Amino acid sequence: MDDEFKVTPWDVEGMVDYAKLIEEFGTSPLTDELLEKTARLTKSELPIFFRRRFFFSHRDYDKVLADYESGRGFFLYTGRGPSGPMHIGHIIPFFATKWLQEKFGVNLYVQITDDEKFLFKEKLTFDDTKRWAYDNILDIIAVGFDPDKTFIFQDSEFTKIYEMAIPIAKKINYSMARAVFGFTDQSKIGMIFYPAIQAAPTFFEKKRCLIPAAIDQDPYWRLQRDFAESLGYYKTAAIHSKFVPGLMGLEGKMSASKPETAIYLTDDPEEAGKKIWKYALTGGRATAKEQREKGGNPEKCVVFKWFEIFFEPDDKKLMERYHACKSGELLCGQCKRELIERVQAFLKEHQKKRKEAEKKVEKFKYTGELAREQWDKSIPEPLKK
Amino acid sequence: MDDEFKVTPWDVEGMVDYAKLIEEFGTSPLTDELLEKTARLTKSELPIFFRRRFFFSHRDYDKVLADYESGRGFFLYTGRGPSGPMHIGHIIPFFATKWLQEKFGVNLYVQITDDEKFLFKEKLTFDDTKRWAYDNILDIIAVGFDPDKTFIFQDSEFTKIYEMAIPIAKKINYSMARAVFGFTDQSKIGMIFYPAIQAAPTFFEKKRCLIPAAIDQDPYWRLQRDFAESLGYYKTAAIHSKFVPGLMGLEGKMSASKPETAIYLTDDPEEAGKKIWKYALTGGRATAKEQREKGGNPEKCVVFKWFEIFFEPDDKKLMERYHACKSGELLCGQCKRELIERVQAFLKEHQKKRKEAEKKVEKFKYTGELAREQWDKSIPEPLKK
Repeated sequence: MDDEFKVTPWDVEGMVDYAKLIEEFGTSPLTDELLEKTARLTKSELPIFFRRRFFFSHRDYDKVLADYESGRGFFLYTGRGPSGPMHIGHIIPFFATKWLQEKFGVNLYVQITDDEKFLFKEKLTFDDTKRWAYDNILDIIAVGFDPDKTFIFQDSEFTKIYEMAIPIAKKINYSMARAVFGFTDQSKIGMIFYPAIQAAPTFFEKKRCLIPAAIDQDPYWRLQRDFAESLGYYKTAAIHSKFVPGLMGLEGKMSASKPETAIYLTDDPEEAGKKIWKYALTGGRATAKEQREKGGNPEKCVVFKWFEIFFEPDDKKLMERYHACKSGELLCGQCKRELIERVQAFLKEHQKKRKEAEKKVEKFKYTGELAREQWDKSIPEPLKK
Repeated sequence: MDDEFKVTPWDVEGMVDYAKLIEEFGTSPLTDELLEKTARLTKSELPIFFRRRFFFSHRDYDKVLADYESGRGFFLYTGRGPSGPMHIGHIIPFFATKWLQEKFGVNLYVQITDDEKFLFKEKLTFDDTKRWAYDNILDIIAVGFDPDKTFIFQDSEFTKIYEMAIPIAKKINYSMARAVFGFTDQSKIGMIFYPAIQAAPTFFEKKRCLIPAAIDQDPYWRLQRDFAESLGYYKTAAIHSKFVPGLMGLEGKMSASKPETAIYLTDDPEEAGKKIWKYALTGGRATAKEQREKGGNPEKCVVFKWFEIFFEPDDKKLMERYHACKSGELLCGQCKRELIERVQAFLKEHQKKRKEAEKKVEKFKYTGELAREQWDKSIPEPLKK
């Protein structure tokens, strides 16, 4: 495997060696034992995200399960930086999060960081990121969370997050922040403060927080784990996912800055199909003849990877596809066409739910049970009269 | 005059040369012409703060008066860092602010920076500064502001200030902030962000903002003036006051960290009298006999300075006191006793109003006309139903 790869919260490059990442980041592998315990506690079959180790690493997930078992409970926290339209790579971890919420019956907080994206993206205005916030929230709601157990909040609106971030911001000095996030003299003071805002939701409840997110976000949580206990809270737990590769290669991750590598959730299904047909890298041979003789290479194929990560929930069928490719029986054109069908069906269904989500925004952001509970704490009593 | 003096937002040391400060800070002297125009526009006699040049310097106060004259108007903004009890040195600028509000009939925003004091004072907890916030607000209300034209807000509560600070925090990079405020690698990220929070209220209205504050706060406003116009707002105007000296000397300023130099607004009047009697530095001679012969030195006398700044509103009587001292006719004991009487009368009156203020807090913070208008913008519509 390529030795050259880089994973930071702002950049993922090269062919990622996930085993090495566990070592480098000092996290723990998500073991069979933990997954079996998850299945047992939830009395459910594990979803493909777990079965196929799309989530592959964790911090304190064992303690989360122990807390659940003992009745102390836990809560979920994840987020989205609204700098543009969401693509398939963005939404997959939300499906895993939905499974966790549903099976464990726990609260979920979704932070929409319109402040962060405005601060970190030179060219975006605050109005831009606020607009993308609304747009992205529709995609998130479409995943199907419980509206009374989910609070979707936007930093620019639910500004109580600032008050919650203050004690955190007294725990982090500039040299710590610079070491973790690579700030320079040119970094804006809003960027430097931002890690405190991202850590604050881990303190929303006096229970252990579990964050399902891609491994590149881990530095934020590592920092949180340095000071959480000194503030009277739990070190946050996390389960870490791999990256969803873009169409053009298994290296790096699907990126909004390279639109031809991504399928957006709002893409017209026809256009999405054409994009996959045109750009998707396969592990195929130079000619159909050669492929029939030598077989394809699913390990090097984006099309197969997408089936594996999301679009083929049936393990048996996935293995059949694998062997059919290896044996030269299934050619790339056929395989791509089958992926396109799945992606188009997914997009149509998602876009229908996304449309319905417009009517649910108010509930998730303000009037659902959990949302109301949180807003209630942020509005001074005399204003409620 | 002593050449060694230092004025920064966090430290005032030595005998301050105010003329030199105008040069160093690049501000303008508050001229006779501007003060005459102030008297003319307000159809009022100038208060002693102006007549005696306790406010001695400004930025764009000429433009503020022009805006008022033309009908565009302006608004006032000042603040208080709640790290302990307020003393006489803290409250005097609020009396000047009250005069401006009353005579010009304008809105006033008072920022209570419980976030700042928690972040900058290692030993204070957030609960401490929130408690001091309430305590200090009573003193501020006791000054007698218009409850429908004044919004007193606490950063930890009126967190919409965070959203307003974000565009500002994208305009200031670390090296700018470090140059102005002297941050180091050990500075907490909350401290580094804080200048954006202090600048935000200058954008509360789309009018010119006038800040009456001691000259040591000027660096904050200088920074604001660098980016205000690029964000579509006015550069803030300011009028700068001198410092109120502590009891033990004319150098530096009255400081809460040296309790024997300060008269607190909550001091028992009897105790306050004893403190003045014991600690107040005068310009007297070694013996009464010598003083009768050579006269005292009011220029070097804290007692006289306090009469001048606040406790003798009558110019004629102040001059009589000056000459009586110079001529050796008025001795220090007598003069001190007269100051003590004035201070005690002031404290009794203030403490009565402070008690009454308890019932007014809600109005100034939440339900007065201006307060409600501001809170209204910060609560999302669906929560108002």
